[in-house]
Order: sequence, then structure tokens, then C-alpha cells
Amino acid sequence: MTLEPEIRAPNGAAAVKHPIVRVREDDIARADDHVAVEEPLEIRLGGHSLAVTMRTPGDDEELVAGFLHSERVIRSAEDLDVLAPYRADGEPNAGNVINVLLKGNIEAARERLRRNFVTASSCGLCGKVTIEAIQADLPPVTADLRLPAAIFSVLERAMGRAQATFERTGGLHAAGLFDADGRLLVLREDIGRHNAVDKVVGHMLLARRLPLDRHLLMVSGRASFEIMQKALTARIPVVAAVSAPSSMAVEMAIAADMTLVGFVRGGGFNVYAGAGRIALERVLGA
Amino acid sequence: MTLEPEIRAPNGAAAVKHPIVRVREDDIARADDHVAVEEPLEIRLGGHSLAVTMRTPGDDEELVAGFLHSERVIRSAEDLDVLAPYRADGEPNAGNVINVLLKGNIEAARERLRRNFVTASSCGLCGKVTIEAIQADLPPVTADLRLPAAIFSVLERAMGRAQATFERTGGLHAAGLFDADGRLLVLREDIGRHNAVDKVVGHMLLARRLPLDRHLLMVSGRASFEIMQKALTARIPVVAAVSAPSSMAVEMAIAADMTLVGFVRGGGFNVYAGAGRIALERVLGA
Repeated sequence: MTLEPEIRAPNGAAAVKHPIVRVREDDIARADDHVAVEEPLEIRLGGHSLAVTMRTPGDDEELVAGFLHSERVIRSAEDLDVLAPYRADGEPNAGNVINVLLKGNIEAARERLRRNFVTASSCGLCGKVTIEAIQADLPPVTADLRLPAAIFSVLERAMGRAQATFERTGGLHAAGLFDADGRLLVLREDIGRHNAVDKVVGHMLLARRLPLDRHLLMVSGRASFEIMQKALTARIPVVAAVSAPSSMAVEMAIAADMTLVGFVRGGGFNVYAGAGRIALERVLGA
Repeated sequence: MTLEPEIRAPNGAAAVKHPIVRVREDDIARADDHVAVEEPLEIRLGGHSLAVTMRTPGDDEELVAGFLHSERVIRSAEDLDVLAPYRADGEPNAGNVINVLLKGNIEAARERLRRNFVTASSCGLCGKVTIEAIQADLPPVTADLRLPAAIFSVLERAMGRAQATFERTGGLHAAGLFDADGRLLVLREDIGRHNAVDKVVGHMLLARRLPLDRHLLMVSGRASFEIMQKALTARIPVVAAVSAPSSMAVEMAIAADMTLVGFVRGGGFNVYAGAGRIALERVLGA
């Protein structure tokens, strides 16, 4: 059988344009950047919410089929009765819900999932607009920090020096917490970026040093919704990432009045939200 | 207050040494590589299992404190009554369990977690040795594939060409499924690497083309336990990653007789398990 390879970007928007401030060592400019789309997908089994996962929209039926197979709820396409997007024009998240009906015993499937379950999500309530759900409970940050643009290269260098295990394995993420003068207070490495952030926040909590409302969090790799949620809960107003943020991280930063900086590399960075906290005019004036 | 920055690798082993076969364009050699440690941590609240997360051992109390804070189960250290590792010498996973007792209403905490959280875990049963639990259900792969060493550069180039959205955003992971001749069958991009793998497997499931026992899976970034679990469930015998595998990914590959290749870059790669499926003598003889 000859097949054209199935190479597709997700059907929906896999990336969206977002206005940024692009800061380089000798240049600062407004620009547009593409950020990868991150949105919650709710899986409903027999009409009941089963799981919510953060994903890039597109090929959602495949995602759900593969997920159910990985969890060994189904073994083949024959086990599926219905696998279809939830169609309800009025509902704001109709495009983010997949309905599943199985041919076999649904209780056995539920029991298997309950024991065996895997899903990674930080969503508030299944099927709700996550950001709204969170905003309802967590007020925006209010810190009136004013940071020099050069602080992000200080963070970058401090993170690089401190990531001892990454050097050896190439396999660990890191999260570092800094004060407003760019001093590293605590750094943790973990195979999971979210774990590294939890360890940093947990360290400060156990040291009775919360809230962290005069602090900066820097993470290796990307900034997802989950990282922003953890930072907001700890009241951290500024998050910096070595790599790209997701669309939902940017939306959440804007909604919560947080500063979000990405691609902190080689002295440059991109500001996705909350540029007001960074003294960019100094760079402009230089 | 002046503080020494808290920069520590995790207390336990953050990395372990593992024998590999290192393949470069004009050289092949046995060597030792360090892989980042990935192990399950069970959080028990009031004696009952609350969540299992895959993490790098070390600073586990901080991890749990930060996790409970992020989930808004606790607001400060005052809310904690007990936060301590489970000590039981006889039990094999005693080092991977943290016990929590709260001062407040534990039912309210459970309810919050039930609503707010979808646990991230790939473990079978909480507190069990995960690999053993999985082996009990999933037999090892049996594919007698024999692959030329050069196939991995073919995969690498195909993945690079196909990752259109990554090019624009730097924010998407990809998973590609190949046949034993190195032909790309399906590629999916997603903000989550596990989602990209689920989409690939789901695509083949819906096309009624499971099991994938003559196939190779390649993922951008790292290979974790979760990726290996998904591959094994789909009976994929060979997994290749652009970056490093975790310790548990390697252990699982060995236990399930899978081939695991990491650092597929610039024509070279490292073999962490199942080298017998790769015709390395050709390289040696060259």
C-alpha cells in the first residue's frame, strides 16, 4: 500500500499572531510574533466529563482515539461507537469538546481510567473557559516593579551557571526565582518543568517567604499556561522563559496583568505582555 | 536579609550512568552516558493516595508544598500539619511517597482537588513500581526488525522538513511515525509531546492500521516514560528522540525489549536500549 504521508499542521489555528516588543542588544522594536496555540480539550465519555487536556487544536478525534488507546480503554476502532466533536453553536467551548461513546461496558472503561489515568492539565472546571475560571478566583498581580532591560541577561547567565545536571544529561528542566535586583534566590532542576516551578514555590512557602510579589521566575524551555497559573497563584508578577510562550500563557499574562518575556537568549528577549514593567526607554535612548 | 542562593541538584541521584552505543558518522563506540532520573512520587493526604507525578527525586517536600499551593489546597506553611517522606524500610517505594496532613478540613481540600485538578501521572497503580505494573499487562515487543544505522538521519531530515509550525513559533513538539524503510507515514505537531504521539497513534487506529509492530516513532525533544508507555501500548518497537531519554524511559525500553535511540542529531545518535535491531557492524566495517 502506498500512502501519502500525513503531514499536517493542526486543522484549527496552530499558531496565532501576537504583537510583541522585540529587544535586542542594540535595537528595540514593536513586531508581530507567532505563538503556538494552546487550548483545553474536554473528553466526554457517555456524556460525562472524563478529562481535560491542554493541546493544540486540530486532529482532536485522533488525539482522543490515541489517548483512549494509550490508556487501554479501547483496543481498536471497532470499540468506538461515536467519536465526534460536540456541536452546539451557542456554547463558547463547543469546539473544545469531543464526545465519545463506546460499544462495550462504559463502567469498565471508567474504572480503568480511574486507576490508570494520565492526563496533564491545570484547567479550572472542565468545559469552562479556563482563564475566566481562574480570573474569578485569582485577582491580577499588582506589583509596580520597574526593571532594567538588562536584568534578563543577568537571569539568563545565572540560570546557565546553575544548571549543573542539565549539563550532564541534557534532560532536566530548571526554574529559578530571582529578586527584583536579579539575584538568584533558589533554583531547582527536574525532569518536569512544572515540578521545578513547584519546588521553587514550595521552597519559599516552607521558608515562610510567600507571597512572591517582588520576584521574577525564569524557566528553561517554554512557558505554558500551567507555568503562568503556578506563578500567578504565588503572586509572581514577572515570568521569563528561554524559549517560546504558548497562546494561553500570553492570554493569561495579559488577563492577570503579568509580565511575560520569552526567548531570553544572547542578551535579547521578546516581551509578550506587561512591557510597562521594563524600562525599555533606556535601551531606546542608548 | 542576605541569603545564599539555593542552588542544588536534587538530593537523590539526579542523573544515573547508563552504558550506550555512541554512533557518529565515522565512529562507533561503547560509552557511558548520564541520563536524568525520572521516578514516580505518590502524594498521600490523610493516608489516602491523592496523586502520582513523575519527577526527578530530591526536594520532594518542596515539590509537594508547591503543588498543593498551586492547586490552592494550602495558602501557607501554617496550613500544613505534617509534610514528610513515608518511612517504611520494607516497602520498595518508601522513598517515593510523601505523607501530608493538613490542619484544616481535609474534605474541602479533596473536593478542591477533585474539581480543580487533573493529575499528571502515567503510573499504573499509585505506590507500585510502575514498570512492573505495566509489564504485568503489556508483554515486551517481539519485532525482529533489522535497521540500517543510516535510517535515523533519514528520520531526522524528514522530521525537520515536516515541522512547519515549529519553524514559525518555536513552540510545538512533533511526533512522526515511520515504516521500517524510513518512510514518514504521519506527523503531528502539538504543544504537548504526549498529545502529538496520541494523535499519531490515534490516526493509525482510526485508519485501522494497528498494531504498529513494524514501525518507528520519532519525537522532538526528550523521551520520557510516558512516551515509551504510549509506544509500547501501540506495539511500536523503536523510539527515537532528538534529545535525551529519562532514566525510566531507558528502564522501560530494556524491560520491554524496545529499541531506544536518543540525541538523533547531525547524522549521529546514541543507543540506550535494543541495539540489536540496528546494523551497527556496517558502520564499524566502513
